[in-house]
This record gives sequence, structure tokens and C-alpha cells, in this order.
Amino acid sequence: MNPVEKELTELLADERYGTFIQTIRKIRFPANYRFDSHAHPQVEINYINSGCCMMEVEERIVPLKRGSCIVVNPGQKHLFMVDVSKSCAITQLIYRTALPEKIPESLTCFHYDRPFYVFQDCGELCSLLENIGRYYQRRQEDDYQEAQLDFSLLQLYAMLSRSMEKERLQADSRQGKLGEALDRIHSRLEEDINIEELSRELGMSSRYLRKAFEDSIGISCSQYITMLRIARAKELLWDWEKDITQVASLTGFNSPQYFCRIFKKHTGMTPAQYRNMKKERPELTEET
Amino acid sequence: MNPVEKELTELLADERYGTFIQTIRKIRFPANYRFDSHAHPQVEINYINSGCCMMEVEERIVPLKRGSCIVVNPGQKHLFMVDVSKSCAITQLIYRTALPEKIPESLTCFHYDRPFYVFQDCGELCSLLENIGRYYQRRQEDDYQEAQLDFSLLQLYAMLSRSMEKERLQADSRQGKLGEALDRIHSRLEEDINIEELSRELGMSSRYLRKAFEDSIGISCSQYITMLRIARAKELLWDWEKDITQVASLTGFNSPQYFCRIFKKHTGMTPAQYRNMKKERPELTEET
Repeated sequence: MNPVEKELTELLADERYGTFIQTIRKIRFPANYRFDSHAHPQVEINYINSGCCMMEVEERIVPLKRGSCIVVNPGQKHLFMVDVSKSCAITQLIYRTALPEKIPESLTCFHYDRPFYVFQDCGELCSLLENIGRYYQRRQEDDYQEAQLDFSLLQLYAMLSRSMEKERLQADSRQGKLGEALDRIHSRLEEDINIEELSRELGMSSRYLRKAFEDSIGISCSQYITMLRIARAKELLWDWEKDITQVASLTGFNSPQYFCRIFKKHTGMTPAQYRNMKKERPELTEET
Repeated sequence: MNPVEKELTELLADERYGTFIQTIRKIRFPANYRFDSHAHPQVEINYINSGCCMMEVEERIVPLKRGSCIVVNPGQKHLFMVDVSKSCAITQLIYRTALPEKIPESLTCFHYDRPFYVFQDCGELCSLLENIGRYYQRRQEDDYQEAQLDFSLLQLYAMLSRSMEKERLQADSRQGKLGEALDRIHSRLEEDINIEELSRELGMSSRYLRKAFEDSIGISCSQYITMLRIARAKELLWDWEKDITQVASLTGFNSPQYFCRIFKKHTGMTPAQYRNMKKERPELTEET
């Protein structure tokens, strides 16, 4: 047995250990669905099967597209918003773990060292979540089925820990680079952001910055900025506090007209229509 | 941890334990492919993705169709034959295990108590084999990936042991029933087998016998008898020892004409064409 196997099987054998699944489902959220800001003591994993959505975790907006996955750690404030123009199907696992006091170094998924992690191209994670769902349904049939569930959970922990380790290594190597770029973009959203200038400020080529964006976030730099602006605009519109001219200016659009045009292009409706939309939540559909 | 989990993780921790994978692949065999009788010290698992094939294990002919799976235990003589009219894709795992002397009762897959097991509707087993293949390729990348491989193998052992346990229970409950019917069919293949008579002999209704066939073997009683006859006829034709009239009579067909008609219907060629066919083995294609 290698150290990871040893640590995972010892965890499974530890009487203080337990995984308590609250939700495991594939679900379709209708276009424009919104789940307001909340926090819970469980880990929440959302894998995007189709469509686009966005989460805001501890004031950081995270665009999510097909094949990507977000892991929100316990106690982190988050909200969930589906694209206005089309529905979004996700595979979701919400679980809590009881753990011994000392958690081995290698099991990064239990360190909760960041508010959230985002991974791209997570087809394998999705299959694993589906297996967990299947074995969870049958866990009481016999010891073999319960073993399938418990070993699948160990596989989940190995997969998450591995991805988090890789992400941390990458993050270290780009420290002061992409991370810094993201921070600057977030803090200057109401200004006119110029990628060339931004990369010069950070002492890197704009080619490097664009590539780092595509690789880590899965969309281009300018798409990211527009998504952020639209998301922040939606937030501001939702709260009825500001008029449309103010919203346009706070989200970095040069004019209300330009703001309305881009907003409509991305959401299928004007800011005024969005604001006036009924806020009733449509019914969700569990997918099988 | 339940007893099955305890036994499997203890096995993984035992320094005498090891799983040595010889072959893990998805492969398409062309129509009429044949692998002659052989035996090896490994376990061989074949899952049928598409097409039809047949194995003969220790003189028992086993028809296999899409979704079914055969586990051939170590040292058992077996041959493999693909339907003459269409190709057959299988997912195959061949492995050997090093084990401690004492194997727990619950881990039936290491007891090797029968020459082989056949299971129907094994989609989940197939996914698991695919996972094993994927993790096997990456096992040397890091400890997390090796853990994925080793836990997938534990899942395989849990899944096989569970299916074997169920099969043994069913076999016990139908002892002297379907088992006896199969033995009688196999030993009388050259006679005219009448299902009504056979069930009367065994003191059961023909309805029960037909149902037991469908449930355990996955095809109807008369399909099974015809498949057996065709398989035995192929064997006899292959060996050039007997003429076609003799083959027809040894495989329970009333006349050589009727034999030729049914043989052609099932294989796409006449017995003479089959016999004269070149025996060169066509190339195999690995599927990805």
C-alpha cells in the first residue's frame, strides 16, 4: 500500500470517521434560476452537465460551464445563478464528514484551506458522482453494496485531493501572476480594463495572461470580464437600489445604451425587463 | 467498517497480496474468429459489448450475448468462438492475484469453487473494467492514481463476490431443477429434446423451466438448444473427422437438409462452406 492508500483505509477504519450524504442528485435548473446567498456546514460539489451558470463564493464570482466543477468548502457563503437564456443541468453532491483530529497531509480535500476550488474537464469526477449516487441508493442491501459506496467515497477523496494538490502547485507557480490579475480585474470592474495594460503592469506578456486564463478558467480573458460585469449588473439590478445608468457605470460599461445592448445579448432581455421579471422560483426537475 | 470492507482493506494491506494485470482492453473480434482451447493461471473476465460469441469451458458450452459477462477461473480449459455472421466486441480483463493462505468466506471471487460464472446485464461491471483500464494506464503517475487503481480492484472483488454469492444461492434453490435440466440437455443433444417432456421428467411445469432459462441464461430454452447444437456442429466440422450427415445426426438434427438450413440461418454459410473456410486468423482491432 502506498501512503495515500494507507491514509485512506486508516480513515475508513477510524471509528470517528463518517461521511453523511445530504444530497446526491442530477438536477436541471430552469433559465434564470437563482439561489440566494447562504452557507452550510457541508461540502457542496456541483458538476455542470449542460448550460452555463455562475456561483459567487465569498464575494468572488465564478463562471461555470459544461464539464467544469466547483467544490465549495464548509461554511462558505455562496449563491448560485443560472444563465438567463438557457437552463442548466448539474450533478450535485452535498456531504458532511466526521473526521479524527489529525488529518494526513496528503488528504487535501479535508484541509479546507480555500473557500472553493474550480476544476475543468471533470468527466471522470462526474462518473464517480453518479456511481456514488447509485451505491448510496443501495447501501442498505448488503455489505458488498455498502463497501461499493465506501470505496467510491475514498476514490472521491483521492481524486479531489489530487486535483487540489495540482491546483495548489499551479497556483504557487503563477503566484503574483494570474492570481494578481484576477484580483486587479475584480477590484476595477467599473473601470475600462485593458488587457495589454494589465499584463504590462504585472510584468508579463498579454499572450501569457490570455493563455493562463484559457487554461485555468476555461474561457477567454475578455469573456471573463464581460461575464463578471453582467453578473455584477444582475446583482445590482436584483436589489432595486440603483437606476440603470448607475448600474451601467458601476459595472464598467461606457454608456447605458452599450450596457443594455451587451446585457440583452448575454441574457436575452433588457436590464429593465430583468429587473421587472417575476421573482417566483420555477419548479426544479430531478433528472434520472 | 462492515466485515466485507474490513476483509478487503486487510487484503490490500497484506504484503502477500498483489494483483497482476496481464491484459485490460476493449477489443473487436471479427466474425467467425476462434481461439482454440487453452488454459492459463489467470482469471479471465470477458464482457460482451456487442455481437454474440460462445465459450466452451471444461466441456460446457456457454452462449454469450451483449451485456453478459463470463468469469473463467484459473486453470480452466476454455475456447472462444465468435458468431460466423457478425463481429463481436468485448471488454477483457486477465489478471492473476497473489493471496495470503487464508481467504475470508465473504470474498467468493477468490474461492475458485466453479470452473466459471456467467452473469447477465453487467453494465456496471463493464464501467468498472473501463475505470480499471484507465487507472492502470496512469498507475505510475502518482500515489493518488495508484490508489484509484487499487480501490477499483477492491470494488471489482466486492462486485464479483456479491454476484457469485447470489448465483450460488439461486443455484442452491434450483438444485435438481435448472441445473439438472441443463445436464440432461447437454447429455442428450443428439436426441430430439422435447421441453414438455423434459419438464415432466424433472417434476416441474414447462412454464417454470422456460422462465428459469430466461432468467438465468438470458435466452429461451429452444434458442439455447439450437445454439448448443450449432456450436457442437461447428466443433465437429472444424475437426474434419466426420461427414455432414454424421454431424447432423450427432447434433440432434432430423436430416442433413434440415441441419444445413438451420446452420445457414445461424451462421450465414452452409456446413460445407464453414468446413472449407480458410482457417487463417484475421487481424484483431483494439478499440479505444
